[in-house]
Amino acid sequence: MQHDSDLAFASIAELGNLFRRRKLSPVELTQFLLDRIEALNPRVNAYLGLNPALSLRQAKAAESALCSKRRGKSRRDLGPLHGIPVSLKDNLYTRDFPTTGGAEILRDFQPLQDAAAVASLKKAGAVLIGKTNLHEFAYGVTSNNPHFGAVHNPWDLDRIPGGSSGGSAAALAAGLCYGSIGTDTGGSIRIPASLCGVVGLKPGLGRVSTEGAIPLSTTLDFVGPMARTVADTAALFDAIALHGTTERKSILPRTPSPRARRPRIGIPKPFFLEIVDPEVERAFEDALHVFRKLGAKIKDVTLPYLLESETAGNVIAWAEATCYHQQAGWYPCRAGEYGEDVRMRVQMGEKVTAVDYLKALELREKFTSGFLLALVENELDVLIAPTTPIAAPRIGEEKISIASVEQNTRALLLRNNRPANLGGVPAISVPCGLTRKGLPVGLQLMAGVTNEALLLEIAARFEKAAPLNARPSLQSCA
Amino acid sequence: MQHDSDLAFASIAELGNLFRRRKLSPVELTQFLLDRIEALNPRVNAYLGLNPALSLRQAKAAESALCSKRRGKSRRDLGPLHGIPVSLKDNLYTRDFPTTGGAEILRDFQPLQDAAAVASLKKAGAVLIGKTNLHEFAYGVTSNNPHFGAVHNPWDLDRIPGGSSGGSAAALAAGLCYGSIGTDTGGSIRIPASLCGVVGLKPGLGRVSTEGAIPLSTTLDFVGPMARTVADTAALFDAIALHGTTERKSILPRTPSPRARRPRIGIPKPFFLEIVDPEVERAFEDALHVFRKLGAKIKDVTLPYLLESETAGNVIAWAEATCYHQQAGWYPCRAGEYGEDVRMRVQMGEKVTAVDYLKALELREKFTSGFLLALVENELDVLIAPTTPIAAPRIGEEKISIASVEQNTRALLLRNNRPANLGGVPAISVPCGLTRKGLPVGLQLMAGVTNEALLLEIAARFEKAAPLNARPSLQSCA
Repeated sequence: MQHDSDLAFASIAELGNLFRRRKLSPVELTQFLLDRIEALNPRVNAYLGLNPALSLRQAKAAESALCSKRRGKSRRDLGPLHGIPVSLKDNLYTRDFPTTGGAEILRDFQPLQDAAAVASLKKAGAVLIGKTNLHEFAYGVTSNNPHFGAVHNPWDLDRIPGGSSGGSAAALAAGLCYGSIGTDTGGSIRIPASLCGVVGLKPGLGRVSTEGAIPLSTTLDFVGPMARTVADTAALFDAIALHGTTERKSILPRTPSPRARRPRIGIPKPFFLEIVDPEVERAFEDALHVFRKLGAKIKDVTLPYLLESETAGNVIAWAEATCYHQQAGWYPCRAGEYGEDVRMRVQMGEKVTAVDYLKALELREKFTSGFLLALVENELDVLIAPTTPIAAPRIGEEKISIASVEQNTRALLLRNNRPANLGGVPAISVPCGLTRKGLPVGLQLMAGVTNEALLLEIAARFEKAAPLNARPSLQSCA
Repeated sequence: MQHDSDLAFASIAELGNLFRRRKLSPVELTQFLLDRIEALNPRVNAYLGLNPALSLRQAKAAESALCSKRRGKSRRDLGPLHGIPVSLKDNLYTRDFPTTGGAEILRDFQPLQDAAAVASLKKAGAVLIGKTNLHEFAYGVTSNNPHFGAVHNPWDLDRIPGGSSGGSAAALAAGLCYGSIGTDTGGSIRIPASLCGVVGLKPGLGRVSTEGAIPLSTTLDFVGPMARTVADTAALFDAIALHGTTERKSILPRTPSPRARRPRIGIPKPFFLEIVDPEVERAFEDALHVFRKLGAKIKDVTLPYLLESETAGNVIAWAEATCYHQQAGWYPCRAGEYGEDVRMRVQMGEKVTAVDYLKALELREKFTSGFLLALVENELDVLIAPTTPIAAPRIGEEKISIASVEQNTRALLLRNNRPANLGGVPAISVPCGLTRKGLPVGLQLMAGVTNEALLLEIAARFEKAAPLNARPSLQSCA
């Protein structure tokens, strides 16, 4: 690596290669990253909790495992994540860091156990570099946190990084970690990935344990990986995914699937492409062009119950979130300690009737069947759509005009993401270009349940054909 | 059989024996029963739908299968239910009979398919003798049906048979069928079994398909058998239970379990024995004495979350019932066609909040774990309690005094039954004596999940040691 910034933006595979060739040690890398965080984090506010002593201890252990032997692969080599600094959204339980959930109510909360995904990362030898800022209780998409300060988008510091895993995406975009674990209840991994020009995977139902993630909506919550490249995201996913009883080393195939070579792609135009900013639409059309050149077969497809599913998703999330906050004893007892937007949403959950909740569950089943059926009947491998219909809005920008119609920013950002949570299907966001203002645009690919491998392969082919080739300035554009 | 009444009250095994010895034909028996129904049903009002031509056709088929061969067992012998007239609660879908659900709204409803349990009975060669009256939409415990008339308790025609499977229990008690299939959401099989002096089994979760039973509360509904003896109940259960993939001929063991010989019995005194009519208490004490003489080991046990589970059961049932009635398009559109009590309950369900519903589901999980743990920790095979804390109330008697405290009749009848629905555990009611007025008292046995076999064995041992030895008069006592 010639320059610091090359090192900051290196891929996980490159770093692993340097470790094993003894050109770089995990301790050096960790110290480099801690210094970089100290220098740059004040601008982006991506990190809430750091524990340099712990991170360096973990790096030291990785170093002695990976770099001590004279030749050959160490027996204690734990694989691709060994020695790699990874951050964690601060709603994941960690024994080594406080876990605030981005909330005043949990400012001093110290879990006694690690979340399941965190334990998996440790087992894979990753260095835990810090806890990332987020929307309070993961209950929002701006990461404009009233208690710990707004997270700033590295591509334009006046803009939001998206949320709720905003700190994770901002840290990745700013070169302040090599991977991150986020949570996604209605887009909270994919939205910030889209707005920050990184990759985020919301896995399929049951693929990654949600144990130890502070619940938002228990039946819609997912834990998943974020990184700067699809390959890095795949490495993280492989480390945290539940591997079943056979304990295979990797759930991802070694040889590429023939399906990924000429993927059959569906565009769910109704709903997903109805309200889209022209610049995002252009980037999306460019992406389709890339796929066509790659030999993909593309057709339009209509998913049933999409409009109803939007309401159903709200009803389920509101009710389950409020139930959890009541059970935890936070609401209404400590209502005054919530930020205004989150308090309002928790209040809203009180008004949902059981009948509406049950109808939403029923609608969700219909929607899920319809989604999977649409893939099968149309012989499609994946569906494709813009992750978010807009690029990053300014901090505090609650309304946005598209084609002279004013839209609610929050609803816009959630719009294309919630369906994959309701359907329980895996979905990934990959960068697909920049707007004229230099803001990233995200492309979302959705597959059938438990087909993350295919999703990652197709995303990787796209990424290779249309790399982003740009880095954020860490400046305000204004 | 010397007398008609002996034939009317014969056991399924006795009838099968007579068929196979060609002393009786299924057609004769069916005709005898149809005549008896014609004569006696006006008094008890147990049947809503009859189809004599169909019943006789089924009997004829059974006759040619069972009685045509000169010697030996016919190859087409379908087993113990072959040729036996069985009734069906009128909320089970039947192709051969209308299915009213006891509701004006469904007076002319003709399903195109049989409920899963009905299809199983047909496969077992049973003769479908008719559809039995019930509480409207199974949503009540009196079977005092405003649209099709009250069902009368054969032991005292001025009294209710209990419900909601009141017609099934009354038909059995009056000698108008040899078995019946009912449904049980909070005691609807066991309550009428208790008040009519017959046997009723609510199976464990997932043991009998609820497909084609008009839903009341989808997560609390069970389909189960009712008969006059435990052996008859077991034969019916064996025919309708889901047998898994191995397709064994019987899920009941051929040889008695050693556990049934000296059963370890727990009495959950708190809650289950807190409000009990003295005469029921006496019968219960007598039953304990019988068990002690049989070598049972009896101890007191405390179940956790019982009081809370009563509220949770109500919340779940109200919400799920109202959701179904709204989805079906019956409520509120056709609110005027409901009986007053059921309309009021459906209205109540609108007011349940999603948060309360979710909390009730959580409580239910805790209650279920606590119930199963109590059995394991105390090394118990079954729990025992009065099925209902009172014998049959008079028709219209909405309040009853116990120890000078006025009690709501409906709540009293449900009280000891709902826990097994919430916990998903199997529970059986067997007769355990008569009050001084000559009204039957029911004894409830509850086991761990999927232990119906042990439950039936223990109930059979009790029944043998303390047979009821009485038949209802089909008169009013007043």
